Amino acid sequence: MRIALLGGTGNLGMGLAVRFAQIGYEVIVGSRKFEKAQERAVKYNEVLKKLGGNSRVIGLQNEDAAKKADVSVFTIPWRHAFSTAERLKDLLTDKIVVSPLVPMERMGDFFIYAPPPEGSAAEKLAEILKKSRIVSAFHNIPAARFAKFDEKFELDVAVCGDDEEAKKVVIGLINQIEGLRALDAGSLAVSRMVESITPLLINLAIKSGSKDLGVRFV
Amino acid sequence: MRIALLGGTGNLGMGLAVRFAQIGYEVIVGSRKFEKAQERAVKYNEVLKKLGGNSRVIGLQNEDAAKKADVSVFTIPWRHAFSTAERLKDLLTDKIVVSPLVPMERMGDFFIYAPPPEGSAAEKLAEILKKSRIVSAFHNIPAARFAKFDEKFELDVAVCGDDEEAKKVVIGLINQIEGLRALDAGSLAVSRMVESITPLLINLAIKSGSKDLGVRFV
Repeated sequence: MRIALLGGTGNLGMGLAVRFAQIGYEVIVGSRKFEKAQERAVKYNEVLKKLGGNSRVIGLQNEDAAKKADVSVFTIPWRHAFSTAERLKDLLTDKIVVSPLVPMERMGDFFIYAPPPEGSAAEKLAEILKKSRIVSAFHNIPAARFAKFDEKFELDVAVCGDDEEAKKVVIGLINQIEGLRALDAGSLAVSRMVESITPLLINLAIKSGSKDLGVRFV
Repeated sequence: MRIALLGGTGNLGMGLAVRFAQIGYEVIVGSRKFEKAQERAVKYNEVLKKLGGNSRVIGLQNEDAAKKADVSVFTIPWRHAFSTAERLKDLLTDKIVVSPLVPMERMGDFFIYAPPPEGSAAEKLAEILKKSRIVSAFHNIPAARFAKFDEKFELDVAVCGDDEEAKKVVIGLINQIEGLRALDAGSLAVSRMVESITPLLINLAIKSGSKDLGVRFV
């Protein structure tokens, strides 16, 4: 199975790219710019080598990454995600697309969840990518910690989707990553409740002066 | 300090009443009906005795409970909470009022967060109780487990509010309960993100066939 991290040049993209490559998947890091994607692939492969793995990450423009991949993760800032989806939609037909998108706004000294009229970013993405198999996941991963590979964590990943088979594939992928436990949270409409945890985690971290926080359902 | 559990005849009310009484607070269980409140007070005192504590819980009508208490927790089903608040508002002037309210709706085989136009139940309560000091907390406590006193848990309680002093008082109360850790989540407007975790927890429990779930921020 080939996994693309579209716009996967940030912390979440790096964390997922390296970990999926370590497990043995073919991984593509996508970017708007080919050069940027190439540069990040070199970086991720260096990290992989240091961790004792093989170079398995390639860098491509988002369009080519989407075309080649079986599963594409939208590791794109939410403000750009929907226009990117419009551009890529034909390339993603029938494919699994994972939304970790969390729309939020700053409000004074804290962050607030700012869902679109569709109810959640995942449902809006599904509206655009009508022919793709949308699953939402990875919203609550503390990205900066996740991009460090000596960091130990034990975190839950709530997974939502209306395509049960696609959801199972994504849950299977997540459960292969050490320290993550995937939980089926139900329909895609449940995404709004998972997305909204992320600004809360940021607020809690700001207030307590602590590191990035993730979540456990216990 | 006197603590009232308004409408505190259910699991969350029982869990809080018994635990606060154990710590040594004067506790009032309130109900619409005096007889119901009395009956629950007898029950809670029996539990307290079994746990080796003193009978410290009294039962009163919500009006009298609100009048006598320094801190009133709205352990009332959210559909009835706002009309109760209208009735009690003069009695709660200048007092600390805690909202554990979570508005939600069933949608097919899962639950979805259904906030009022104010943004959250806590903000709606604050709109009604303009002269009270509103703090929100306890939303994500798995109530059935919390009403069992041999149950061990380690759960986080996100606390929101615009009255910093009142929030500190509530955080102090929560941190005295064994197994709970209070975290300042910021302004009252953050409540929407905390409230929305509860239907997610219910969905996760339904999907996994597991017990009531709570949350940890790690």
